[in-house]
Amino acid sequence: MNDASHDVAHLGHVELLTPEFEKSLWFFTDLLAMREVARDGDSVFLHAWDDYEHHTIKLTAAPTSGVGKVALRASSEAALQRRVAAIKASGHGIGWHDGGPGLGSTYAFTDPDGHPMDIYYETEWHVPTEESRPALKNQASRFPGVGVNARRLDHVNFLAADVTLNGSFAAEALGGRATEQIRLNSGKLGAQWFTFTNKSYDLVYSEDWTGSNGRLHHIAFATDTREDILKAADIFLENGIHIESGPHKHAIQQTFFLYVYEPGGNRIEFCNSGARMILAPDWKTVEWTEADRAKGQAWGMKTIESFHTHGTPPVAVPAH
Amino acid sequence: MNDASHDVAHLGHVELLTPEFEKSLWFFTDLLAMREVARDGDSVFLHAWDDYEHHTIKLTAAPTSGVGKVALRASSEAALQRRVAAIKASGHGIGWHDGGPGLGSTYAFTDPDGHPMDIYYETEWHVPTEESRPALKNQASRFPGVGVNARRLDHVNFLAADVTLNGSFAAEALGGRATEQIRLNSGKLGAQWFTFTNKSYDLVYSEDWTGSNGRLHHIAFATDTREDILKAADIFLENGIHIESGPHKHAIQQTFFLYVYEPGGNRIEFCNSGARMILAPDWKTVEWTEADRAKGQAWGMKTIESFHTHGTPPVAVPAH
Amino acid sequence: MNDASHDVAHLGHVELLTPEFEKSLWFFTDLLAMREVARDGDSVFLHAWDDYEHHTIKLTAAPTSGVGKVALRASSEAALQRRVAAIKASGHGIGWHDGGPGLGSTYAFTDPDGHPMDIYYETEWHVPTEESRPALKNQASRFPGVGVNARRLDHVNFLAADVTLNGSFAAEALGGRATEQIRLNSGKLGAQWFTFTNKSYDLVYSEDWTGSNGRLHHIAFATDTREDILKAADIFLENGIHIESGPHKHAIQQTFFLYVYEPGGNRIEFCNSGARMILAPDWKTVEWTEADRAKGQAWGMKTIESFHTHGTPPVAVPAH
Amino acid sequence: MNDASHDVAHLGHVELLTPEFEKSLWFFTDLLAMREVARDGDSVFLHAWDDYEHHTIKLTAAPTSGVGKVALRASSEAALQRRVAAIKASGHGIGWHDGGPGLGSTYAFTDPDGHPMDIYYETEWHVPTEESRPALKNQASRFPGVGVNARRLDHVNFLAADVTLNGSFAAEALGGRATEQIRLNSGKLGAQWFTFTNKSYDLVYSEDWTGSNGRLHHIAFATDTREDILKAADIFLENGIHIESGPHKHAIQQTFFLYVYEPGGNRIEFCNSGARMILAPDWKTVEWTEADRAKGQAWGMKTIESFHTHGTPPVAVPAH
Repeated sequence: MNDASHDVAHLGHVELLTPEFEKSLWFFTDLLAMREVARDGDSVFLHAWDDYEHHTIKLTAAPTSGVGKVALRASSEAALQRRVAAIKASGHGIGWHDGGPGLGSTYAFTDPDGHPMDIYYETEWHVPTEESRPALKNQASRFPGVGVNARRLDHVNFLAADVTLNGSFAAEALGGRATEQIRLNSGKLGAQWFTFTNKSYDLVYSEDWTGSNGRLHHIAFATDTREDILKAADIFLENGIHIESGPHKHAIQQTFFLYVYEPGGNRIEFCNSGARMILAPDWKTVEWTEADRAKGQAWGMKTIESFHTHGTPPVAVPAH
Repeated sequence: MNDASHDVAHLGHVELLTPEFEKSLWFFTDLLAMREVARDGDSVFLHAWDDYEHHTIKLTAAPTSGVGKVALRASSEAALQRRVAAIKASGHGIGWHDGGPGLGSTYAFTDPDGHPMDIYYETEWHVPTEESRPALKNQASRFPGVGVNARRLDHVNFLAADVTLNGSFAAEALGGRATEQIRLNSGKLGAQWFTFTNKSYDLVYSEDWTGSNGRLHHIAFATDTREDILKAADIFLENGIHIESGPHKHAIQQTFFLYVYEPGGNRIEFCNSGARMILAPDWKTVEWTEADRAKGQAWGMKTIESFHTHGTPPVAVPAH
Repeated sequence: MNDASHDVAHLGHVELLTPEFEKSLWFFTDLLAMREVARDGDSVFLHAWDDYEHHTIKLTAAPTSGVGKVALRASSEAALQRRVAAIKASGHGIGWHDGGPGLGSTYAFTDPDGHPMDIYYETEWHVPTEESRPALKNQASRFPGVGVNARRLDHVNFLAADVTLNGSFAAEALGGRATEQIRLNSGKLGAQWFTFTNKSYDLVYSEDWTGSNGRLHHIAFATDTREDILKAADIFLENGIHIESGPHKHAIQQTFFLYVYEPGGNRIEFCNSGARMILAPDWKTVEWTEADRAKGQAWGMKTIESFHTHGTPPVAVPAH
Repeated sequence: MNDASHDVAHLGHVELLTPEFEKSLWFFTDLLAMREVARDGDSVFLHAWDDYEHHTIKLTAAPTSGVGKVALRASSEAALQRRVAAIKASGHGIGWHDGGPGLGSTYAFTDPDGHPMDIYYETEWHVPTEESRPALKNQASRFPGVGVNARRLDHVNFLAADVTLNGSFAAEALGGRATEQIRLNSGKLGAQWFTFTNKSYDLVYSEDWTGSNGRLHHIAFATDTREDILKAADIFLENGIHIESGPHKHAIQQTFFLYVYEPGGNRIEFCNSGARMILAPDWKTVEWTEADRAKGQAWGMKTIESFHTHGTPPVAVPAH
């Protein structure tokens, strides 16, 4: 564990772009039980019931789908300054700006693949309303008891043209620790999972087979139990939401998963890791080969083809 | 989050004393599915299937019950040196020694209440045998599929004559962050929960009503789901193990819990927190009053009397 | 198994009386996710998503709480005639009437304790609306994904001044089979559980300690899993509903339970039996003594006092 | 519901043939936690912890895999005589014999496809040993707390050359009620699900694409929860048992399922239906078309090819 390991405290929030704003909003509020906490122009800010900060998702109407910004919270003001210095040194810094609703001074940058990112320390804690006040004082807001009850943002999985390049940035500029990775037969990394916490991952880079930049594979929300994910599948079935894959258990990271497409086309995961955590400060990166991957998921289900091809925004793919 | 916050990586292992060695060993191996990994004199070393280190519990035959040593793993060699310096400065240091099976150089100390503790960085990773090799390479050992399947050590709850004093030591010498606490009507702290990780607690101090020192309230093992804890209750019922309380949900920390007494008399908890984590680096300690506590547990169950009186080893209590 | 054993197919629906009509309606629709299917005067008819008949509950505004009518569906027209003949012979028959919304010709009677009951065969199947149409055609209506998602009516527990007398009626006139019972030290029956199906019970008689007649102990709804009941407890906590007892597991019948009071004062249970069924046609009634009962519930929780004293409607109790 | 509807009380037990006797025995005892209750020649009798009769499975060493006998318990002596008369009338009767361990007088017959079957009323109840005595008296034997903890036999799925012919026999001679069925584009029935209880099915006929007779598709064991089935998948993964499909949810009957091959090659299902029951005495058979089936299982997973081709014993298939 190097000195930078805890400079990023955790994934903060994500801006998601959607060409189907009203339908996407219905998905996040009615099916996932997120609460609207602010509006600003073409964007609505949504809060998952257990997130302690102002908002979890910024949903923005846009001509196409994809990820807007992914924001990371630093562990302290000093940690923020250390990370900003490292980002600047990497050549990917952009500059300070006002972070918008719920945030103070924020530093903008991109990863090498061009995904827009923010890092900040100052943050406004979520204040429940009369309606959303929880019965227990150690909880950010009331358990909604609606739909999937998405508890909190869990992780972001970026598509990137070059996993190794972006992984190095995540490790060196951001202090991420690679807990697992896929090594292709060619020797290249096919995907790499990074953690800033004791969760087994917070940020993932997966190779974009189209060679495009700045795209999204998926964002994920944590649920309390695997049973919640089974219930979620019933809810998506009843509401006409496309279920891409799952519920099943990944071999990599052993996550129990369900993937759906929200109405704007972005892939959304619901994930549960049980009590699995990375407590070792010197965890040895676990590497999976193509041969390992050919065995399918943990219980043998073959990975569905679209999992390797669908990303947002969609791009035109040249014929092979 | 101060600089010391991540110097202790996590709770390492616990030595438990039992006057009923064979029965306690049956409890941990047959009912909890822990595997024996070493023996040394009157002690057997036991491993929970998801712990990455050499062992989880050192079970030692003794004239009475209670906790032997609680060991903490530091985040790095430098972090270890910083913590040892702070412990020495507190006046509670003892000295360096060989940590025994699975450990390298280890520093012994006590907390102000006199509980024996160790801190170390060098550690031997658990190596599964042919029999205990897991199907997935990102797992310490094979899922046993027996009894309660205790996944990993979760936390230790110490009884202490003076919670405030010991809590200050946990915060200052060890770098623990207090996530929740009970404030008695007298103004004194009744209990305090500390974390070194993103778990909501790893180490707890609870007031010992007898005024004794060095006693144990309980140690806890994590299960994957609440359903595992319901199954555990059935298993303890069938095996004649005394169930003290639960399954139910604590108001404090919202842990889903089950408390039993292992045959040696020590209280053992099985706990599940769902996806609840403390991600905020600047989490504000949640405080509960006696009036809050009078409401009982989360779903209204009154706390059973023995929860406030039973500790190990048992002590003679002077008449009021 | 005598010839009458399958003449009653199952418990049909229940009329519940409430002095807090609007709040009770909110409880059943917003928290339990039942859907309003009809109104008639002071009554609203509510449907639980997996019940195949027109309605599950008739909720009626009344000066006090309690049970209105409990209706049983016969297995066939011939079975209906056999049961009506037996009821008439018992002297508790009242007469034929129009059963109201969703029902055809219905025969009214009481049990010896005076609880009003109906038996019928003709029934209208639930027809989902555009909004409540399920994705799968083998399901009565859409899974709501709201609150507790009460699946179907499970059983009714009547208080009665004389359990033996009412139990005999349930067995002889209705064809119920006693699966379990409590034998008091006095030799009297304290409670008796009857089934008409392969469920372990559908109708229960419990001794009314006040000696009153016609009162209700509780009605119960089935959930899919024990996890649903844990979630239900969170939902009731957040919504200020009084949780009387549970979640826990009964020793008798091994039901995983949660008891709450709906805003009108009636006790409502949420229950799950896992895969436990009574398949034996010659099941031997299991008898529990007061000594057995003193051990508490399955996992040792002592039965809460109000469980023995609260019934609806409330009655004035003479001092002992 | 015709008069025969309850003459068969439930599925009693199944004889399974295996060419890998020792490995199959390990599967049923070590992984499923069934207990050996008797031996007779090449057969061992195994008991699942919640079955009330003498045994659940008779496992017999044989040159190949497949099903030996499937036995049904009648509801009464009179019901037995009625069913025997109907079977004789169908031309499929064989004759009375001693049913073997745990059984009294038993009538042997086959279905039109030639599967050997037994029907009986006299039965010996399971008597637990000192070791297997349960803590609660309303339970057949002790909850094992080992592996999958198979609770009870749930259903048998027979392959048959002609589903319609065998379905008619199940309905008319045995009194089964068809709860769901698949209608092929050709107009023929592709599969039909029958119940004798309030479970949604006990006996299934599926078309054998090879046109063979007397083969087995699978037998199934009930678990308490869906979570049990997820745990089962982990246990099979760790023990090298081939997982064919699942965990997932069927569209037909909505069963949550997991299919594996026991070491002898027979397909074994673990199933959970939550609280779903068929309570309507006049349930209308739900019919699924090939177009319905093309949508895959409830949550969209495509049915694996081997599910349509693997049966036991294996047969040589002529080239198309």
